[in-house]
Amino acid sequence: MDAIGVDIGGTKIAAGVVADDGTVRAERRYDTDPGDPAAIEESVIRAVSELREEHEVAAVGVAAAGFISPRRDAVLFGSNIAWRDHPLRDRLAAGTDLPIVIENDANAAGWAEFRFGSGRDAEHMVMATVGTGLGGAIVVGGCLLRGAFGAAGEIGHMQMVPGGHYCGCGHEGCWEMYASGRALTRAARAAVVAYPDRAGALVDLAGGPKIKGPHVTQAAQAGDPLAVELFEDLGFWLGAGIADLAAIVDPEIAVIGGGVAEAGDLLLEPARESFRSHLSARGYRGELTVQLAELGNEAGMVGAADLART
Amino acid sequence: MDAIGVDIGGTKIAAGVVADDGTVRAERRYDTDPGDPAAIEESVIRAVSELREEHEVAAVGVAAAGFISPRRDAVLFGSNIAWRDHPLRDRLAAGTDLPIVIENDANAAGWAEFRFGSGRDAEHMVMATVGTGLGGAIVVGGCLLRGAFGAAGEIGHMQMVPGGHYCGCGHEGCWEMYASGRALTRAARAAVVAYPDRAGALVDLAGGPKIKGPHVTQAAQAGDPLAVELFEDLGFWLGAGIADLAAIVDPEIAVIGGGVAEAGDLLLEPARESFRSHLSARGYRGELTVQLAELGNEAGMVGAADLART
Amino acid sequence: MDAIGVDIGGTKIAAGVVADDGTVRAERRYDTDPGDPAAIEESVIRAVSELREEHEVAAVGVAAAGFISPRRDAVLFGSNIAWRDHPLRDRLAAGTDLPIVIENDANAAGWAEFRFGSGRDAEHMVMATVGTGLGGAIVVGGCLLRGAFGAAGEIGHMQMVPGGHYCGCGHEGCWEMYASGRALTRAARAAVVAYPDRAGALVDLAGGPKIKGPHVTQAAQAGDPLAVELFEDLGFWLGAGIADLAAIVDPEIAVIGGGVAEAGDLLLEPARESFRSHLSARGYRGELTVQLAELGNEAGMVGAADLART
Amino acid sequence: MDAIGVDIGGTKIAAGVVADDGTVRAERRYDTDPGDPAAIEESVIRAVSELREEHEVAAVGVAAAGFISPRRDAVLFGSNIAWRDHPLRDRLAAGTDLPIVIENDANAAGWAEFRFGSGRDAEHMVMATVGTGLGGAIVVGGCLLRGAFGAAGEIGHMQMVPGGHYCGCGHEGCWEMYASGRALTRAARAAVVAYPDRAGALVDLAGGPKIKGPHVTQAAQAGDPLAVELFEDLGFWLGAGIADLAAIVDPEIAVIGGGVAEAGDLLLEPARESFRSHLSARGYRGELTVQLAELGNEAGMVGAADLART
Repeated sequence: MDAIGVDIGGTKIAAGVVADDGTVRAERRYDTDPGDPAAIEESVIRAVSELREEHEVAAVGVAAAGFISPRRDAVLFGSNIAWRDHPLRDRLAAGTDLPIVIENDANAAGWAEFRFGSGRDAEHMVMATVGTGLGGAIVVGGCLLRGAFGAAGEIGHMQMVPGGHYCGCGHEGCWEMYASGRALTRAARAAVVAYPDRAGALVDLAGGPKIKGPHVTQAAQAGDPLAVELFEDLGFWLGAGIADLAAIVDPEIAVIGGGVAEAGDLLLEPARESFRSHLSARGYRGELTVQLAELGNEAGMVGAADLART
Repeated sequence: MDAIGVDIGGTKIAAGVVADDGTVRAERRYDTDPGDPAAIEESVIRAVSELREEHEVAAVGVAAAGFISPRRDAVLFGSNIAWRDHPLRDRLAAGTDLPIVIENDANAAGWAEFRFGSGRDAEHMVMATVGTGLGGAIVVGGCLLRGAFGAAGEIGHMQMVPGGHYCGCGHEGCWEMYASGRALTRAARAAVVAYPDRAGALVDLAGGPKIKGPHVTQAAQAGDPLAVELFEDLGFWLGAGIADLAAIVDPEIAVIGGGVAEAGDLLLEPARESFRSHLSARGYRGELTVQLAELGNEAGMVGAADLART
Repeated sequence: MDAIGVDIGGTKIAAGVVADDGTVRAERRYDTDPGDPAAIEESVIRAVSELREEHEVAAVGVAAAGFISPRRDAVLFGSNIAWRDHPLRDRLAAGTDLPIVIENDANAAGWAEFRFGSGRDAEHMVMATVGTGLGGAIVVGGCLLRGAFGAAGEIGHMQMVPGGHYCGCGHEGCWEMYASGRALTRAARAAVVAYPDRAGALVDLAGGPKIKGPHVTQAAQAGDPLAVELFEDLGFWLGAGIADLAAIVDPEIAVIGGGVAEAGDLLLEPARESFRSHLSARGYRGELTVQLAELGNEAGMVGAADLART
Repeated sequence: MDAIGVDIGGTKIAAGVVADDGTVRAERRYDTDPGDPAAIEESVIRAVSELREEHEVAAVGVAAAGFISPRRDAVLFGSNIAWRDHPLRDRLAAGTDLPIVIENDANAAGWAEFRFGSGRDAEHMVMATVGTGLGGAIVVGGCLLRGAFGAAGEIGHMQMVPGGHYCGCGHEGCWEMYASGRALTRAARAAVVAYPDRAGALVDLAGGPKIKGPHVTQAAQAGDPLAVELFEDLGFWLGAGIADLAAIVDPEIAVIGGGVAEAGDLLLEPARESFRSHLSARGYRGELTVQLAELGNEAGMVGAADLART
């Protein structure tokens, strides 16, 4: 039966009616202010209400960034919005009789890829969402892995480099600091200082030293050697971490999504090569494939809806 | 119903009849020569045959070190014995009508702890077997995680240090190189060279510079500062890796077994402290406990038997 | 004969008449605006002019942060002030007949310690100035080491951690990112996020999460465990780098100065311990001592004056 | 005036009469047994005696591997031969009236390159001798840098990777473990395990998995991709360390010698590229060149002779 999925991002909300086969029947989007959580909740309630007027739905799934309680009713620690131990389900449930579940946004996106996207033929899958940060979702035996405390799949906080780059979480060397949009931007800006003679194309595109991720993608697609190298570095670290996930979880596919993955093979080819060069016992064991996500930025909404009805 | 468990080690075989509740009704042990695989298979067949004479059993589970095929019938790559794509199940099945399954030895030990030992009240568990190497087992939602290719739980080959110590697998910086008996021995011998003035107690115990793991344990238990420090270093790396597993799998318990774990709190206390200092989002998320294994060196046999009947 | 020393800092200028024995006969200080280089030059010229009215001097030495030309006449790349290939000597020489030399500020401070401070009995010395950044000076055989291009002693940009923290120079893992005031501040702020339960004293002192170096010093001196640990970490990296310098330059003393060194043994004891644990061939080779600088923040001025007359 | 130079290696001694311009007038070579130090001393005495019969010489310089006393009279810690605090000068002086000095072998080789080889036009030079290990020599202002305790230039024991490969000195991550013949061999053998499908050429050349340095050189010269990559990795680490030396000592030339350097540009090109990518403030400072050594394996003998007469 149809369900509503809502994806609460930092600056916008996407809500849609999602059919059993993952197609989106109707959709609504609102701009939001991450500094006004009350307004965000109102927008979600309004979106659900409007969508229900025209569609019969069984449940509502809400995706949000951060740590979610194991019972799927609260945001323990929001990353975009300053929710702390926030009972989001109860806040949204007022005035509706539908069952509501709260999901981590990367888990929701991963679930959508597993059900309807690149992972639809897999039984064991990991997904890395390479956006501003690095989110993850893990599916084992056809089930989303939530863990004992709801925190499974926080792959971005696996440590890659002891003494490495500071992460926003207060620790050093988290994978997210080497394989994310933030990492790409940071490395590009550092390269402008370290190798000024090579950074001309990037600086021109950005109109100065404040380079952003899409500038690097655009320059790399045009063949700029430094930009290509920045994606090779990112891919190196991405592949290294996927090899770690293979050692632990051993999935048959690693799906790469998020905005940075729009660079496609500029990112995926180095990631595959690095994965192969890091994988232990290669040649004596089966080996996952690294694939691009298929569903784009609707994945969170679609996955949240699907998780709500299961 | 009772089942037979067999644990094929590098230099000995342990076989026993294991009841539903994990108790061992009868047991046989044989010394073996890892260089003579045919003799090992004969010993296993003989042990099973002898045990069956006095006990009614439903199945046989065989634990071996290395990569096991997903169908649990072959050793793809043995670590102690030079088996490569070896159809061990068929070789052992000749002349018996019992169902036989082959299991990775660390998986078997972990399963035993999950069912009958420190993890018996858990639903999600990781076990780290700190022996000569570092083996792992992961249980999620009450099921042993085998992965798509049978290689899940190979936690010892997660990379901890880019450019770090060479591992026998040909890669650099594997966790096993920092948290295993081999790591302990290596660090102790390096310390003799680097800090000769502090290594007196260890050299005395070992009768020279060829220090072995039990010497370090003994010295640490007697309060030797260098030996205590070597366990602190080991615990530091053990805890760091457990924090990675918490980020990925999020279990409620990490069980530490293997010969090196006999040092008890000398190893576990630093591991716990390091785990806490490495865990992302600490204070906003539930947190696993680090516990000693309970079953000792019968765990592999018990777990293999139990996995055979399920 | 007496000489004038001028130390051009980011926000102030100190100028003084320095006697042959390093004593300061007269001194002047001015606040400056790093964004107004012309005004800075005028202040220097005025200070020199005023000091000469009452003192007979032979030369002027000017200390500035950044890369200095090998001929000691230009600032190739200023760190506090945006000088690029700036002919500072010629700009200051207008209207005076005195010889003028430009020196790197850390070199000047190191030279003062070598001549009149903690290094006065040494022949081979390194000095690490642990201020906002990490500056260095190296003396071999009684001579300040300037190198082929005037860039010797830039010890803060030795790489300590491949893939480590980003440095302002655009590279990763520079020593300065692990052993400087900036490192201390950064680590303290990260600790507030990672270990909120331990950071109470620091947050109270700072009136919020924007902790500064002196807050850490003050808290550590009062015994706050987290602050003490932050200095231990800093000392660990400081000592590790000193062991590298011992392997390369092999001095008999390492002098530690700069604002962060005001923490004294809270920093120096861990640095000494780390140095000892990192030094190769310890016990078979002579070993430097790690000592606190003696001259305080007049060192740059005194050293610049002394270098001008030699 | 002519002088005799003696180079005591692990398995042979080379002795020669060296003219003021570095030419070798006569030479003698003996095989030796590193396990028989007395026989080695006898061979040295005999060689000196024979050479003197036909040549008038002013002094004898003896190069040996290990830490040498600052007074140049003893081997404090031999690396090839088990000398500990061994008064080598007095042992050799019996029966001769010539002045004798003992020198570190890498220092001697570096000095020869500085006087007569690739560094002859330089004033500040570093030399890296990439043999089995990684030896170093540093010349500043035309003088060999010996340091306060005779241990300057031990560049191979600078730490490159915290937690990195174990070094024979008992520490982790020494530069020698990443840029030496031993590193090359070790990496090649690890590659056979990690990437069996790529190691065919190397295994064929070596007739099995026990690959040695010259096999890698030969394979790389024939274009084998894995062998070329192994030299690229070695060059990467070599260049990274040279950038550290540039930050500290700032020479105008880095000379690369030793047996591994016979690979020429296969090693030097990646080293140059890595040096450039690691150098701080590149573009705002003068920059050394990385050059091949010119004198081959006579360098130690020639340099020892030359140091003896100065």
